[in-house]
Amino acid sequence: MTQAVRVHNFVVSRDGFGTGEGQSLERPFGHANPAELFAWAGATAHWVNRTDPGGTYGLDDFCTRDFAHGIGAEIMGRNKFGPQRGPWENLDWQGWWGDEPPFRTPVFVLTHYERPPLTMGETTFYFLDATPHEALARAFDAANGKDVRVGGGVATVRAFLEADLIDQLHVVVAPVELGRGERLWNSPHDLQERFHLEEIPSPSGVTHLFLWRR
Amino acid sequence: MTQAVRVHNFVVSRDGFGTGEGQSLERPFGHANPAELFAWAGATAHWVNRTDPGGTYGLDDFCTRDFAHGIGAEIMGRNKFGPQRGPWENLDWQGWWGDEPPFRTPVFVLTHYERPPLTMGETTFYFLDATPHEALARAFDAANGKDVRVGGGVATVRAFLEADLIDQLHVVVAPVELGRGERLWNSPHDLQERFHLEEIPSPSGVTHLFLWRR
Repeated sequence: MTQAVRVHNFVVSRDGFGTGEGQSLERPFGHANPAELFAWAGATAHWVNRTDPGGTYGLDDFCTRDFAHGIGAEIMGRNKFGPQRGPWENLDWQGWWGDEPPFRTPVFVLTHYERPPLTMGETTFYFLDATPHEALARAFDAANGKDVRVGGGVATVRAFLEADLIDQLHVVVAPVELGRGERLWNSPHDLQERFHLEEIPSPSGVTHLFLWRR
Repeated sequence: MTQAVRVHNFVVSRDGFGTGEGQSLERPFGHANPAELFAWAGATAHWVNRTDPGGTYGLDDFCTRDFAHGIGAEIMGRNKFGPQRGPWENLDWQGWWGDEPPFRTPVFVLTHYERPPLTMGETTFYFLDATPHEALARAFDAANGKDVRVGGGVATVRAFLEADLIDQLHVVVAPVELGRGERLWNSPHDLQERFHLEEIPSPSGVTHLFLWRR
């Protein structure tokens, strides 16, 4: 099987924003409320942060449980990794995810300010000043024949879309309006020249969008 | 995680039949046309019998690619294994699936007529004269902590439902009427006292039903 490049469980508001305005340490999604964006995922049995039993096993759960299947590496932007901008003042910041980040693969963090690799649990973060093509070559190599996830944020997904490097996208439209922030698209129909599009409403109130290359 | 018992990608007609009348070597689904029942699956990128590239990556593909994830053993009825009834006349019959069956785990075949285990590729079939509870104990043990799939046919799924041994069901309603054969249910709503039910129409024309224990 060829290695594919996939966006998976990427949540946007009804008006197309993946994150709000004003990211900070206290508010990773800026003015957006992550509890609203991710309520659909938190309710599922396989949500990566679930610690208690229970949860749903319907459509939404098929999506959360598919998150890591067949994935050998992730690429993310620096703003997904942390709220800092510019040169690293120190190396204290180790991501939002605690001692055991949910990636459990090599993760390539795109940044103009490199720093040494950081291993947290089963995840190792590598910091690259690289173009999307260069980063993808590194990620394919590290992924051991498996697929590569482009994990976001918005600017990173857009850069990979503009470079025509993405094969499949799973985007979840949450039933909220953000009005401002970082916008993925005006409408998924913007991509229909290049991608098939399925829109599947879920009983939870989100709509799952599945896009794949024509 | 507790081991779960799951039915997955089990296809029924709109009128609730999992197979038609008159199974034979030539017609594993009796008068039903398997091409009609499984067209949705055959179109997906991850269909287990796909040999050429291509295929869809939408909702239906999430279901076909989830078929083997987290599964450590399957239980099936003898009529899924083959068209013979009564004592085995010989041991020539090795299943419908050729040299590499798609299960790739231990498979427990319920039959009143035992025979020695049969290994085909990565799958080993064990033939058991056992109750659902007994078969499940064997399958849990063989599944190495993973879930157990109840693979059908209809009589086997019904027996496990009647014994209240099934935790989750994914049933696909194909847009055909069969009129006769082996019936899974009159309506999925028959199970709503015991199971949550989500009904998700797919653009391919099938409806995915997700059921899980209340």
